[in-house]
Amino acid sequence: MNIFVDLAMSPNALAALRAGTAGHRLLFSRTPAVSVLATPSADPQFAIADVALGQPDPKAIAEARQLIWIQVSSSGITRYDKPQFRALMAKRQIAVSNSASVYCEPCAVHALSFLVAQARCLPLALQTKTPNGAPAWNELRQSCGTLRGETILIVGYGAIGKRLAQLLLPFGANVLAYRRQARGEEGVPMVTDVELASALRQAGHIVNILPESPQTWRFFDAARFAEISHGSVFYNIGRGTTVDQNALLEALHSGCLKAAWLNVTDPEPLPDNHPLWQEPNCFITPHVAGGHADESLSLVRHFVENFERYVRGEPLLDRVM
Amino acid sequence: MNIFVDLAMSPNALAALRAGTAGHRLLFSRTPAVSVLATPSADPQFAIADVALGQPDPKAIAEARQLIWIQVSSSGITRYDKPQFRALMAKRQIAVSNSASVYCEPCAVHALSFLVAQARCLPLALQTKTPNGAPAWNELRQSCGTLRGETILIVGYGAIGKRLAQLLLPFGANVLAYRRQARGEEGVPMVTDVELASALRQAGHIVNILPESPQTWRFFDAARFAEISHGSVFYNIGRGTTVDQNALLEALHSGCLKAAWLNVTDPEPLPDNHPLWQEPNCFITPHVAGGHADESLSLVRHFVENFERYVRGEPLLDRVM
Repeated sequence: MNIFVDLAMSPNALAALRAGTAGHRLLFSRTPAVSVLATPSADPQFAIADVALGQPDPKAIAEARQLIWIQVSSSGITRYDKPQFRALMAKRQIAVSNSASVYCEPCAVHALSFLVAQARCLPLALQTKTPNGAPAWNELRQSCGTLRGETILIVGYGAIGKRLAQLLLPFGANVLAYRRQARGEEGVPMVTDVELASALRQAGHIVNILPESPQTWRFFDAARFAEISHGSVFYNIGRGTTVDQNALLEALHSGCLKAAWLNVTDPEPLPDNHPLWQEPNCFITPHVAGGHADESLSLVRHFVENFERYVRGEPLLDRVM
Repeated sequence: MNIFVDLAMSPNALAALRAGTAGHRLLFSRTPAVSVLATPSADPQFAIADVALGQPDPKAIAEARQLIWIQVSSSGITRYDKPQFRALMAKRQIAVSNSASVYCEPCAVHALSFLVAQARCLPLALQTKTPNGAPAWNELRQSCGTLRGETILIVGYGAIGKRLAQLLLPFGANVLAYRRQARGEEGVPMVTDVELASALRQAGHIVNILPESPQTWRFFDAARFAEISHGSVFYNIGRGTTVDQNALLEALHSGCLKAAWLNVTDPEPLPDNHPLWQEPNCFITPHVAGGHADESLSLVRHFVENFERYVRGEPLLDRVM
């Protein structure tokens, strides 16, 4: 098989890819995608590819003649998640899988790091030099918490949310979750559309892990923030486009939100003069939630595992179309 | 009974104390202790106290004639943990309990916040403004981890360590622990004195929760840091005196330690010109690990529970002498 590879790789990852696909032909993109949000460029080699790994150009996919399977090297599949594209994949019987398994664990740990850093007031505490017993010291200690008994609402409850709920289990928090279609196997109480407003009011922590789609565009808008209780904390590790950032800013100003922790924004990074940079209680990491050591090796291992499954005719992991 | 109270309290806490000790006499210290590390002053009312709550002066305790029970309002009991004092308590049959249960949960969550903030490179990530795909972005993502499979050695494995191990359970880390006397009920593999050097070499994360005592004074000295593997991370939520700070500084300079997270130092706070403030990978919170909302109310509730036990002749919680 011809495997088109559009992925920046470490030498380790490349070696693992060669070993895992021995006997097949690797066609390397001349401009490997460095980020899921970059625009891929067309590559003529794509025309003869049977399999594609990376972030292949949807236009090139449409024109490919031999393609049978695409493994997207990210968790988000925004660029492919369109009715027309889905219809084309169905018609041409092209399987599409993503790399959700690779990013699930680091994303869940990143979300947890936000929650506990907020609970322990780390950004403030790490900047505070105060004698024990001073008023600033007592105030800081009083502001700290443990998450015990606090209500945490996870909005967009897929693999990452489920893993986050597992990590939160020993904290004794009250974890609720919302997803488009509950499947009854979530392991935490699920909130329906009708119950969402009430859950937002009840929650002290709202963790947004929504993927990007026409349905989730600006899901957190002014009306949604108005449903949130005063003094809550908002976290975003889904996609920046799911939040109306003006409404978020207003929620921080009004005190509706005590703090916001964002791993994603729209655009990324925010322009230098964006007011969210100036908000004292808005904490932003630059889309690194999925990051971990030798990420490309994890992606390749996941691909090779799926490639072996494909060759053996077994169901693919993380299949999305 | 006469209950001497040497504790700064919120109105809620005071109300709970009055309700929980109705029928008994409360003698309030005129200078309530604000911190476990402050030096208490003698109080003449102490002479007629049956019970003492707070941080009573050891000298006053020695002179008291009616005292039957002291509840220390902290987890650390350094000021009382001396052979002479223990002998006096034994001879006079005075029970001593501490407030370990009150601080166990926030301390464990604080320690976990350090571990996951380090794993996700939060201090650096929160200061990094980089486009997706840029070299700084890739480097940051690569530096992040999940704790999975990493070895975490807890040195000083009491209630806080045990709770921390529970919180760490779902992360899939390899948790080891060291304590003076293992009791066989720790729930994690215990390291003996002979095995300690090898465990320090093996661990990527060393969490120091040692209490202060003559035995733990400068436990982490140059020789101990020399046993630690290059690139490890050191955390201290025990007591500052258990670490030789010059040796710690040297370990950070040499790269033996990749980072240090300190909730306690010696003294607290460190003087403004102390070189640890200037270390880019040394992160210091000002002894707030035990902090939580309305701490004095938790302390009073814990005392009232113990007071009821005392009155009923039941064993005290957190009894230490």
